[in-house]
Amino acid sequence: MELRPIGTVRSVRGEISEIEVLPELADGLYRIGENRKLLILFQFHRSEGFDLRVHPKGDAGNPLVGVFASRAPRRPNPIGATEVRLLKVEGAVLTVEGLDAFEGSPVLDIKPLVRRDLLVPDLHGKD
Amino acid sequence: MELRPIGTVRSVRGEISEIEVLPELADGLYRIGENRKLLILFQFHRSEGFDLRVHPKGDAGNPLVGVFASRAPRRPNPIGATEVRLLKVEGAVLTVEGLDAFEGSPVLDIKPLVRRDLLVPDLHGKD
Repeated sequence: MELRPIGTVRSVRGEISEIEVLPELADGLYRIGENRKLLILFQFHRSEGFDLRVHPKGDAGNPLVGVFASRAPRRPNPIGATEVRLLKVEGAVLTVEGLDAFEGSPVLDIKPLVRRDLLVPDLHGKD
Repeated sequence: MELRPIGTVRSVRGEISEIEVLPELADGLYRIGENRKLLILFQFHRSEGFDLRVHPKGDAGNPLVGVFASRAPRRPNPIGATEVRLLKVEGAVLTVEGLDAFEGSPVLDIKPLVRRDLLVPDLHGKD
Protein backbone atom coordinates (compact mmCIF):
# COMPACT_ATOMS: atom_id res chain seq x y z
CA MET A 1 0.00 0.00 0.00
CA GLU A 2 1.43 3.34 -1.04
CA LEU A 3 0.56 6.51 0.89
CA ARG A 4 1.03 10.15 -0.05
CA PRO A 5 1.14 12.98 2.48
CA ILE A 6 -1.98 15.13 2.55
CA GLY A 7 -0.14 17.88 4.42
CA THR A 8 2.63 18.73 6.83
CA VAL A 9 3.08 19.66 10.48
CA ARG A 10 4.25 23.20 9.95
CA SER A 11 5.15 24.64 13.30
CA VAL A 12 5.13 23.45 16.86
CA ARG A 13 5.03 25.60 19.97
CA GLY A 14 4.70 23.46 23.03
CA GLU A 15 1.42 21.59 22.82
CA ILE A 16 0.20 23.71 19.88
CA SER A 17 0.83 22.64 16.27
CA GLU A 18 -0.27 23.77 12.86
CA ILE A 19 -1.20 21.32 10.13
CA GLU A 20 -1.01 22.69 6.61
CA VAL A 21 -3.07 20.68 4.15
CA LEU A 22 -2.06 20.58 0.48
CA PRO A 23 -3.89 23.26 -1.55
CA GLU A 24 -5.47 20.68 -3.86
CA LEU A 25 -6.98 18.87 -0.85
CA ALA A 26 -7.99 21.94 1.17
CA ASP A 27 -11.64 21.59 0.19
CA GLY A 28 -11.60 18.30 2.09
CA LEU A 29 -11.61 20.46 5.25
CA TYR A 30 -15.06 21.84 4.46
CA ARG A 31 -16.99 22.21 7.76
CA ILE A 32 -14.25 20.51 9.78
CA GLY A 33 -14.54 23.38 12.27
CA GLU A 34 -17.70 21.79 13.63
CA ASN A 35 -15.53 19.16 15.33
CA ARG A 36 -13.77 19.82 18.61
CA LYS A 37 -11.56 16.76 18.44
CA LEU A 38 -9.77 15.10 15.56
CA LEU A 39 -7.66 12.03 15.02
CA ILE A 40 -4.44 12.84 13.14
CA LEU A 41 -2.45 10.14 11.36
CA PHE A 42 1.11 11.11 10.51
CA GLN A 43 4.37 9.54 9.50
CA PHE A 44 7.17 9.05 12.04
CA HIS A 45 9.50 10.32 9.35
CA ARG A 46 12.63 10.23 11.51
CA SER A 47 12.18 6.55 12.42
CA GLU A 48 13.82 3.60 10.69
CA GLY A 49 13.50 -0.09 11.43
CA PHE A 50 11.97 -1.57 14.55
CA ASP A 51 12.46 -4.06 17.35
CA LEU A 52 9.77 -6.58 18.25
CA ARG A 53 10.21 -5.85 21.98
CA VAL A 54 10.86 -2.40 23.33
CA HIS A 55 11.30 -0.56 26.61
CA PRO A 56 8.39 1.92 26.73
CA LYS A 57 9.53 5.51 26.31
CA GLY A 58 13.03 4.21 25.54
CA ASP A 59 13.66 3.88 29.28
CA ALA A 60 15.60 0.71 30.08
CA GLY A 61 13.96 0.83 33.51
CA ASN A 62 10.59 0.07 31.93
CA PRO A 63 10.04 -3.69 31.45
CA LEU A 64 10.01 -4.92 27.85
CA VAL A 65 6.72 -5.09 25.96
CA GLY A 66 5.94 -5.99 22.36
CA VAL A 67 6.11 -3.17 19.84
CA PHE A 68 2.31 -3.44 19.33
CA ALA A 69 1.86 -3.00 23.08
CA SER A 70 3.88 0.21 22.88
CA ARG A 71 3.71 3.60 21.22
CA ALA A 72 7.30 3.40 19.99
CA PRO A 73 7.81 5.41 16.79
CA ARG A 74 10.08 2.68 15.43
CA ARG A 75 7.44 0.15 14.33
CA PRO A 76 6.70 -2.02 11.28
CA ASN A 77 4.55 0.74 9.79
CA PRO A 78 5.80 3.99 11.32
CA ILE A 79 2.46 5.76 11.57
CA GLY A 80 1.57 7.94 14.53
CA ALA A 81 -2.04 8.45 15.58
CA THR A 82 -2.95 11.19 18.00
CA GLU A 83 -6.21 12.65 19.17
CA VAL A 84 -6.03 16.42 19.21
CA ARG A 85 -8.22 19.34 20.11
CA LEU A 86 -9.08 21.57 17.16
CA LEU A 87 -8.47 25.19 18.07
CA LYS A 88 -8.74 27.07 14.78
CA VAL A 89 -9.25 26.65 11.04
CA GLU A 90 -7.85 29.24 8.64
CA GLY A 91 -7.94 28.26 5.01
CA ALA A 92 -5.87 25.09 4.68
CA VAL A 93 -4.25 25.45 8.11
CA LEU A 94 -5.55 23.75 11.24
CA THR A 95 -4.28 24.82 14.65
CA VAL A 96 -4.45 21.90 17.05
CA GLU A 97 -3.48 21.09 20.61
CA GLY A 98 -1.86 17.82 21.70
CA LEU A 99 -0.22 16.58 18.50
CA ASP A 100 3.01 14.78 19.40
CA ALA A 101 4.56 15.05 15.93
CA PHE A 102 7.77 16.76 14.91
CA GLU A 103 7.97 19.85 12.73
CA GLY A 104 7.92 18.63 9.14
CA SER A 105 6.11 15.35 9.83
CA PRO A 106 4.06 14.27 6.82
CA VAL A 107 0.37 14.15 7.71
CA LEU A 108 -1.46 11.14 6.26
CA ASP A 109 -5.05 11.62 7.35
CA ILE A 110 -7.38 13.75 9.42
CA LYS A 111 -10.58 12.23 10.82
CA PRO A 112 -13.30 13.51 13.10
CA LEU A 113 -13.64 11.63 16.36
CA VAL A 114 -16.88 9.79 16.54
CA ARG A 115 -18.61 8.41 19.55
CA ARG A 116 -17.48 4.82 19.08
CA ASP A 117 -13.84 5.90 19.21
CA LEU A 118 -14.04 6.86 22.80
CA LEU A 119 -16.06 3.91 24.04
CA VAL A 120 -17.14 6.25 26.83
CA PRO A 121 -20.38 7.31 25.17
CA ASP A 122 -21.97 9.38 27.89
CA LEU A 123 -18.97 11.60 28.34
CA HIS A 124 -17.91 12.32 24.78
CA GLY A 125 -17.57 16.02 24.11
CA LYS A 126 -18.30 17.12 27.65
CA ASP A 127 -14.79 17.96 28.80
CA MET B 1 5.57 5.98 2.03
CA GLU B 2 5.11 2.25 1.51
CA LEU B 3 3.21 0.15 4.04
CA ARG B 4 3.07 -3.61 4.46
CA PRO B 5 0.27 -5.41 6.28
CA ILE B 6 1.21 -6.73 9.70
CA GLY B 7 -1.81 -9.03 9.76
CA THR B 8 -5.35 -9.57 8.58
CA VAL B 9 -8.88 -9.33 9.90
CA ARG B 10 -9.70 -13.01 9.85
CA SER B 11 -13.27 -13.44 10.85
CA VAL B 12 -16.09 -11.16 11.86
CA ARG B 13 -19.17 -12.11 13.84
CA GLY B 14 -21.23 -9.07 14.63
CA GLU B 15 -19.15 -6.73 16.76
CA ILE B 16 -16.47 -9.40 17.36
CA SER B 17 -13.43 -9.72 15.06
CA GLU B 18 -10.22 -11.65 15.06
CA ILE B 19 -6.93 -10.11 14.01
CA GLU B 20 -4.29 -12.56 12.93
CA VAL B 21 -0.79 -11.10 13.09
CA LEU B 22 1.92 -12.42 10.77
CA PRO B 23 3.97 -15.18 12.44
CA GLU B 24 7.22 -13.24 12.07
CA LEU B 25 5.70 -10.27 13.92
CA ALA B 26 3.80 -12.22 16.59
CA ASP B 27 6.41 -11.48 19.23
CA GLY B 28 5.42 -7.82 18.87
CA LEU B 29 2.27 -8.78 20.80
CA TYR B 30 4.28 -9.62 23.93
CA ARG B 31 2.27 -8.47 26.98
CA ILE B 32 -0.40 -6.80 24.85
CA GLY B 33 -3.00 -8.58 27.00
CA GLU B 34 -2.37 -6.03 29.74
CA ASN B 35 -4.30 -3.49 27.65
CA ARG B 36 -8.07 -3.40 27.63
CA LYS B 37 -8.35 -1.06 24.65
CA LEU B 38 -6.36 -0.83 21.45
CA LEU B 39 -6.26 1.39 18.40
CA ILE B 40 -6.31 -0.63 15.18
CA LEU B 41 -5.14 0.88 11.88
CA PHE B 42 -6.26 -1.02 8.81
CA GLN B 43 -6.60 -0.57 5.10
CA PHE B 44 -9.98 0.13 3.51
CA HIS B 45 -9.00 -2.40 0.88
CA ARG B 46 -12.29 -2.24 -1.00
CA SER B 47 -12.12 1.54 -1.48
CA GLU B 48 -10.81 3.34 -4.53
CA GLY B 49 -10.52 7.05 -5.19
CA PHE B 50 -12.20 9.77 -3.14
CA ASP B 51 -14.34 12.89 -3.30
CA LEU B 52 -13.34 16.06 -1.48
CA ARG B 53 -16.89 16.52 -0.17
CA VAL B 54 -19.08 13.65 0.93
CA HIS B 55 -22.47 12.95 2.42
CA PRO B 56 -21.74 11.29 5.79
CA LYS B 57 -22.64 7.60 5.84
CA GLY B 58 -23.33 7.82 2.11
CA ASP B 59 -26.77 9.23 2.89
CA ALA B 60 -27.72 12.03 0.50
CA GLY B 61 -29.94 13.37 3.27
CA ASN B 62 -26.86 14.25 5.31
CA PRO B 63 -25.42 17.67 4.37
CA LEU B 64 -22.06 17.62 2.59
CA VAL B 65 -18.87 17.83 4.64
CA GLY B 66 -15.22 17.65 3.62
CA VAL B 67 -13.70 14.18 3.42
CA PHE B 68 -11.44 15.04 6.39
CA ALA B 69 -14.55 15.96 8.39
CA SER B 70 -15.96 12.52 7.63
CA ARG B 71 -15.16 8.88 8.26
CA ALA B 72 -15.72 7.94 4.61
CA PRO B 73 -13.63 4.91 3.60
CA ARG B 74 -12.95 6.53 0.22
CA ARG B 75 -10.26 9.03 1.24
CA PRO B 76 -6.86 10.20 -0.02
CA ASN B 77 -5.12 7.59 2.15
CA PRO B 78 -7.69 4.85 2.74
CA ILE B 79 -6.72 3.99 6.29
CA GLY B 80 -9.29 3.13 8.92
CA ALA B 81 -8.62 3.74 12.61
CA THR B 82 -10.84 2.19 15.24
CA GLU B 83 -10.63 1.89 18.97
CA VAL B 84 -11.53 -1.61 20.07
CA ARG B 85 -11.86 -3.55 23.26
CA LEU B 86 -9.37 -6.42 23.60
CA LEU B 87 -11.18 -9.59 24.62
CA LYS B 88 -8.60 -12.35 24.19
CA VAL B 89 -5.06 -13.07 23.03
CA GLU B 90 -4.19 -16.55 21.75
CA GLY B 91 -0.81 -16.82 20.11
CA ALA B 92 -0.85 -14.42 17.16
CA VAL B 93 -4.63 -13.95 17.21
CA LEU B 94 -6.37 -11.09 18.99
CA THR B 95 -10.10 -11.21 19.56
CA VAL B 96 -11.50 -7.70 19.68
CA GLU B 97 -14.85 -5.98 19.95
CA GLY B 98 -15.88 -2.95 17.91
CA LEU B 99 -13.63 -3.18 14.84
CA ASP B 100 -15.56 -1.90 11.83
CA ALA B 101 -13.36 -3.60 9.22
CA PHE B 102 -14.31 -6.18 6.62
CA GLU B 103 -13.14 -9.78 6.62
CA GLY B 104 -9.78 -9.82 4.87
CA SER B 105 -8.87 -6.19 5.64
CA PRO B 106 -5.09 -5.77 5.88
CA VAL B 107 -4.12 -4.60 9.35
CA LEU B 108 -1.41 -1.93 9.38
CA ASP B 109 -0.78 -1.28 13.05
CA ILE B 110 -1.91 -2.09 16.57
CA LYS B 111 -1.32 0.42 19.37
CA PRO B 112 -2.28 0.55 23.01
CA LEU B 113 -4.52 3.42 23.96
CA VAL B 114 -2.80 5.85 26.20
CA ARG B 115 -4.28 8.47 28.41
CA ARG B 116 -3.68 11.40 26.06
CA ASP B 117 -5.73 9.69 23.34
CA LEU B 118 -8.90 10.05 25.24
CA LEU B 119 -8.44 13.60 26.48
CA VAL B 120 -10.78 12.58 29.30
CA PRO B 121 -8.02 11.73 31.77
CA ASP B 122 -9.98 11.05 34.89
CA LEU B 123 -12.25 8.54 33.26
CA HIS B 124 -9.83 6.47 31.21
CA GLY B 125 -10.18 2.78 31.87
CA LYS B 126 -13.11 3.08 34.22
CA ASP B 127 -15.92 1.99 31.96
